[in-house]
Amino acid sequence: MTRSAKQKKSIKKVVLAYSGGLDTSVIVPWLKENYGCEVVCFCANVGQGDQELDMLEQKALASGASMLIAHDLREEFASDYLFPLIKSGAIYERKYLLGTSVARPLIAKHLVDVAHEVGADAIAHGATGKGNDQVRFELTVMALDPRLKIIAPWREWEIRSREDAIAYAAAHNIPVTATIKSIYSRDANLWHISHEGGILEDPWNEPEESMFQISTSPEMAPETPEYVEIEFESGIPVSVNGERHSPAKLVEVLNAIGGANGIGRVDLIENRLIGMKSHGVYETPGGTILMYAHNEIEELVLDRQTLAFKQIAALKYAELTYDGLWFTPLHEAIDAFVDNTQGPVTGTVRLKLYKGNIISAGIKSPFSLYREDFATFGQEDVYDQSDAEGFIRLFGLSLKVRALNGLPVSGLAMPKPDYSRFKRD
Amino acid sequence: MTRSAKQKKSIKKVVLAYSGGLDTSVIVPWLKENYGCEVVCFCANVGQGDQELDMLEQKALASGASMLIAHDLREEFASDYLFPLIKSGAIYERKYLLGTSVARPLIAKHLVDVAHEVGADAIAHGATGKGNDQVRFELTVMALDPRLKIIAPWREWEIRSREDAIAYAAAHNIPVTATIKSIYSRDANLWHISHEGGILEDPWNEPEESMFQISTSPEMAPETPEYVEIEFESGIPVSVNGERHSPAKLVEVLNAIGGANGIGRVDLIENRLIGMKSHGVYETPGGTILMYAHNEIEELVLDRQTLAFKQIAALKYAELTYDGLWFTPLHEAIDAFVDNTQGPVTGTVRLKLYKGNIISAGIKSPFSLYREDFATFGQEDVYDQSDAEGFIRLFGLSLKVRALNGLPVSGLAMPKPDYSRFKRD
Amino acid sequence: MTRSAKQKKSIKKVVLAYSGGLDTSVIVPWLKENYGCEVVCFCANVGQGDQELDMLEQKALASGASMLIAHDLREEFASDYLFPLIKSGAIYERKYLLGTSVARPLIAKHLVDVAHEVGADAIAHGATGKGNDQVRFELTVMALDPRLKIIAPWREWEIRSREDAIAYAAAHNIPVTATIKSIYSRDANLWHISHEGGILEDPWNEPEESMFQISTSPEMAPETPEYVEIEFESGIPVSVNGERHSPAKLVEVLNAIGGANGIGRVDLIENRLIGMKSHGVYETPGGTILMYAHNEIEELVLDRQTLAFKQIAALKYAELTYDGLWFTPLHEAIDAFVDNTQGPVTGTVRLKLYKGNIISAGIKSPFSLYREDFATFGQEDVYDQSDAEGFIRLFGLSLKVRALNGLPVSGLAMPKPDYSRFKRD
Amino acid sequence: MTRSAKQKKSIKKVVLAYSGGLDTSVIVPWLKENYGCEVVCFCANVGQGDQELDMLEQKALASGASMLIAHDLREEFASDYLFPLIKSGAIYERKYLLGTSVARPLIAKHLVDVAHEVGADAIAHGATGKGNDQVRFELTVMALDPRLKIIAPWREWEIRSREDAIAYAAAHNIPVTATIKSIYSRDANLWHISHEGGILEDPWNEPEESMFQISTSPEMAPETPEYVEIEFESGIPVSVNGERHSPAKLVEVLNAIGGANGIGRVDLIENRLIGMKSHGVYETPGGTILMYAHNEIEELVLDRQTLAFKQIAALKYAELTYDGLWFTPLHEAIDAFVDNTQGPVTGTVRLKLYKGNIISAGIKSPFSLYREDFATFGQEDVYDQSDAEGFIRLFGLSLKVRALNGLPVSGLAMPKPDYSRFKRD
Repeated sequence: MTRSAKQKKSIKKVVLAYSGGLDTSVIVPWLKENYGCEVVCFCANVGQGDQELDMLEQKALASGASMLIAHDLREEFASDYLFPLIKSGAIYERKYLLGTSVARPLIAKHLVDVAHEVGADAIAHGATGKGNDQVRFELTVMALDPRLKIIAPWREWEIRSREDAIAYAAAHNIPVTATIKSIYSRDANLWHISHEGGILEDPWNEPEESMFQISTSPEMAPETPEYVEIEFESGIPVSVNGERHSPAKLVEVLNAIGGANGIGRVDLIENRLIGMKSHGVYETPGGTILMYAHNEIEELVLDRQTLAFKQIAALKYAELTYDGLWFTPLHEAIDAFVDNTQGPVTGTVRLKLYKGNIISAGIKSPFSLYREDFATFGQEDVYDQSDAEGFIRLFGLSLKVRALNGLPVSGLAMPKPDYSRFKRD
Repeated sequence: MTRSAKQKKSIKKVVLAYSGGLDTSVIVPWLKENYGCEVVCFCANVGQGDQELDMLEQKALASGASMLIAHDLREEFASDYLFPLIKSGAIYERKYLLGTSVARPLIAKHLVDVAHEVGADAIAHGATGKGNDQVRFELTVMALDPRLKIIAPWREWEIRSREDAIAYAAAHNIPVTATIKSIYSRDANLWHISHEGGILEDPWNEPEESMFQISTSPEMAPETPEYVEIEFESGIPVSVNGERHSPAKLVEVLNAIGGANGIGRVDLIENRLIGMKSHGVYETPGGTILMYAHNEIEELVLDRQTLAFKQIAALKYAELTYDGLWFTPLHEAIDAFVDNTQGPVTGTVRLKLYKGNIISAGIKSPFSLYREDFATFGQEDVYDQSDAEGFIRLFGLSLKVRALNGLPVSGLAMPKPDYSRFKRD
Repeated sequence: MTRSAKQKKSIKKVVLAYSGGLDTSVIVPWLKENYGCEVVCFCANVGQGDQELDMLEQKALASGASMLIAHDLREEFASDYLFPLIKSGAIYERKYLLGTSVARPLIAKHLVDVAHEVGADAIAHGATGKGNDQVRFELTVMALDPRLKIIAPWREWEIRSREDAIAYAAAHNIPVTATIKSIYSRDANLWHISHEGGILEDPWNEPEESMFQISTSPEMAPETPEYVEIEFESGIPVSVNGERHSPAKLVEVLNAIGGANGIGRVDLIENRLIGMKSHGVYETPGGTILMYAHNEIEELVLDRQTLAFKQIAALKYAELTYDGLWFTPLHEAIDAFVDNTQGPVTGTVRLKLYKGNIISAGIKSPFSLYREDFATFGQEDVYDQSDAEGFIRLFGLSLKVRALNGLPVSGLAMPKPDYSRFKRD
Repeated sequence: MTRSAKQKKSIKKVVLAYSGGLDTSVIVPWLKENYGCEVVCFCANVGQGDQELDMLEQKALASGASMLIAHDLREEFASDYLFPLIKSGAIYERKYLLGTSVARPLIAKHLVDVAHEVGADAIAHGATGKGNDQVRFELTVMALDPRLKIIAPWREWEIRSREDAIAYAAAHNIPVTATIKSIYSRDANLWHISHEGGILEDPWNEPEESMFQISTSPEMAPETPEYVEIEFESGIPVSVNGERHSPAKLVEVLNAIGGANGIGRVDLIENRLIGMKSHGVYETPGGTILMYAHNEIEELVLDRQTLAFKQIAALKYAELTYDGLWFTPLHEAIDAFVDNTQGPVTGTVRLKLYKGNIISAGIKSPFSLYREDFATFGQEDVYDQSDAEGFIRLFGLSLKVRALNGLPVSGLAMPKPDYSRFKRD
């Protein structure tokens, strides 16, 4: 009996990450047919948009699920996932603010919790076999409960297209809403919405305006700039324009402001973890503002060495987050590093938003290391220009020694040994 | 006799980095008075703007210089300094495109060359004792000819203000043009113009529009987007909108296009090498477009591991460039690394410029690693979804083992030893 | 038809990485039986020890191979694989000198070459499904000829033990030599021999002396120290005790000297690429001496910044080499970086070898940056003690500013914002 | 009035880092003569060896000090400085265990504390103007109390030699013990002793046996190996051979064991912070054992990604420690990172010490990630060999795509654009 066959027999109850869309609606009967198991649908509200819970539950039951469990995870998402991301400064491949990546471990963590709650022995998800999300879901489950089985129908079944799925639904009497299929594959949450597929498949194409969902185009944004003030405490955003908000609410407020001003669109050919490149366009209006604003305070309060090493740590943090390695010792250890740097990241940033631009319009912090009086003349007790000569003479000493020894700067300028004359003896 | 006194006696001829402005005009008589030496003025054209050579020479001689030597360094600047910078992807402290930093070693290299040519035993520069430029000038001289003496009048003399300088000029019968002093301290070249001082000294102030020199504000930029196509060969930009240009000309063309569309303004509190923070605003219209465009091609042709390590190398490259360590073995070795990655960075980028925004509008490369057919369905010879299960199972194996061993993810969740019971024995 | 079944039908001729041992002897008939294909045996001499070619050929043909092709790769191994490794300074997980890792891409490259030569459509190897070597073989083939099929019998067949293999051989009339099976799994080449399994499976066990093959134990090594002088040119070792040798011969000479003096044993629990830990003991007598000696010259000739970044590059180079990513753009780009640093790595190292110890006994280089006269008193033209005050004052300026602002050193010492009072609104 | 002259007038009371040796004995009268201030001698016991406090006090008073204050810092040194160093794995330039570097901030911190206690307005130290220690002392003072003045007599006075100092002492009626001057410059503490100068000034010389102080030579060490077992809890060593010790005592115990077996000698040409190379020989017997043992546990319990990034952090940690940047935000933030990784670094290491060799002889940990059963056959629930195929196919996918596109591995193999035809237009 193969591993797969053994697994099929052993599974009695599955928790499925359920959205109510066509794919996950079809997964319910498919699981029952192929695994002979009970299916519990789990729906996470990570801010992906209007979900009427009553409707969802009705749909899930109609698909054959034994129950629907829904969690509102928006505040947990903002405070425990988005805010650490902001503090870290992580950006994947120079552009991507990790909107989908950062939500997956949260959803998977709750899948595990729900599985424990309902006594399930497996979880299932609707991520395809070609993407990153399967990895992110499954690594989180492996890290949090390695005994849970994982079912990824897209890697197992014969369904290959939307038409196949509709046919399967019809054959199993599953009502599916007759929505017009978007040509784009999308993922939305509190932080962002992503777009893949459609005309994006050819990177020489320009994205079409109709694709965008949560941001106005710079062209259509207001003619008048909008100023926004964001206050941070220890690296965490706490208020917008003087009004304090809960973490999720704060992101929502900035999404509205940023989206209206055409902020936060990114277009990226990225390297997926599983070895292929893909083309994605992301809208992250509030997140783009928050990352920018957080950097502004850091400019004022972090010393040079800390900022430099934090940038290296951010590259690793982004990679770990992208790769689904959120619940790992290294990710947590970098969190500890980052948190240690964030004590002074307190202050207020004023930004001018205008048709897609974020423009710095003022920063202040009680912990500022910028001292106007040192940067300009005067204050010789602290800074004496004559110190600079000694500094330069020692900072450049090794260059001087090298040159005094008659050595060229470039190692390649030196003569190379000739090995052609050595024969095997 | 102190080092300084010894130095004063030994210097017969100095080459001064001369701009024709008030400061360097005053340095000429000051050097003659204090060092009793001949002063040769050297003027580098790095694209800083209109300089009438006849006027400059007349001024230099009127100040007491024995001669003026001028070099047009624009093409050398673009091909040997700016293009390596573009290829490296170096950005200092997340924002600064290194416009001043990258020009200093070029100018200093020519100061050394001119010193050799005219038989001078020292060079002099007008950089202050509080900034980075003194370091960049002097390290280059130390690296290229450690026997040349270096004079930095701002670290030696008693002049502390513009008024002092004007008085000194008057007392020495040096004609200085009665320009109105800008409140900003600026540095301009082919790549950028920087602004410091004035109202920027308080980081809570918003920069005033009148400060900007080479870029239109996003608000005043045209209502209609402008498309631009840039072609790269092996990491180097070679044409704009289908027209090939020499390196410097290409940057100029893009400065005009970018500046007109409000591109390339950056506002940064940065950490100077010499330990203080300063506040600078930079305009880098063409450079910003070029860095963006270069990244676009890299997205298409670099593999994940190369891009990841190249980002780490770029951080170091930026730091070395900022610190004046251009002519150093490490800088050259990173150049060799970068060049090795740039073979496939060939292709065309189409960008939409609109009121301060650079928007991706298409990328293509003969060396693209993006394959539409792999990213979408089909092509199972190359990508088989069932491979993903094995991949994930091994990629997450160590997480699974950790969890099976009953270990928490975070190292801190484990009990700590109690040392209070150990006393010195 | 599954991928595997399709593959089986399509393969006409396979090149097998053949050693003449039990496993690869059994693979020959297994391939013929299961793939119905011709099998060409390829044997690489990478210095693994006595191989009588006549015997090997006889054995291969007796197993059913159509021919045996043997390449002596020792010089190529030393000059194109080991010497770049030495120059890079790569060490995996603080101890492992990468002896097996570095040989696999070489062998796989020749498998590809032989496949092209004989018109084969696949390669096969005898690496198990639990180790790193399968990855190294297969990635190299994928990089150099992605159209070649790859067969890894250990991942396919039912053979699970030595007994199974002997039974299979008997059933197919394959003569196998009745050697006593070592309890250790080993891999040997010019650079090292590795040992796994046996009592090493429990990391609390001490390795037994009888396991070691190419090095005397420190206890049994001579009572009298042996001095050895090694000369390097541009990072490459060229002579031992004044005698020039070809690359492979030089490694052999040092293996003999090092092995006799108990040098180069390493005991490591390492993280395999495929997610599990394994326990290996390595003997790398000549390699350990060469890595040590190379570092010695670098101490004398590399500046601080170059050495520091080269250590970071070495970590990545080690990881790439360990992971089988030798023929990759990043590996080659780091080679370019390293080569650029090696120009001045020329000179002579004298080492004292004594019962397992390598003791520095002298270094000299024409490109030394160590200047006795600068490190001691005098020479104030180059180094003036009074420069140090200015250096320190600026090097520590940001610390001073921070303290003057009343900020604690640690970011965590600052008060944290209290979010408990924010409720979702 | 120069800064120096102003400083001289303003100082009323100085705390001097006092050793009782010739140099610091002479500094006392020199300070009184030149600064007209009271001198308080501070003596830190960091384990540097026999100091009879009565004698020291007598000497200090005889030199003209108003009082001697002595602190026994051995336990603080071990627990708050050495143990973080062990946990970090920091090694400077591949060899140096940072023995002197790590003690300086501790001593300087107490200098500041004593200055506050006695109401002093300055501190003074006897470090020369050519070394690293002046930087380490002064940066710590700048970070902890930037208002304290700092006096470094070696950078100010005319004394240039031992003879000058003896003459100065005689002229001021300071009794100095007529010890024979060692040709070596040394620094000793609980962790190590360093040697510089003498015949080490020529790196081609072999160190002489008589130079060494706290370790037997490998040749003279016992013929019989000694086994030692060290237990760690959360990264911290807590017992030796089953006996628990306080931190300092534990280091002392291992110094005795290691020193007797010839462990821990290192010979290094290092790059000083202030730009020159120097040649040092270090004896760190206990420290070498502890660093080795700590690594052993880490091998067993850290996952691959954590270990890899921790090595990068260790390089930075070593650099910061070497450079005197102990009391800095980055150093503390890396401490937080390291501590977070150390939870599972608990277990026991058995080492065999023999004539200079440390040989692994067993490791065990309750948090081991090494699972014998996974590394060998069986246990297919956790590891299934067939997973490897999918893993390899995806891990190498980008290489395959590159090759299928017909691209060479090396970027340099691609044609370069020819710019010679472009002329400035």
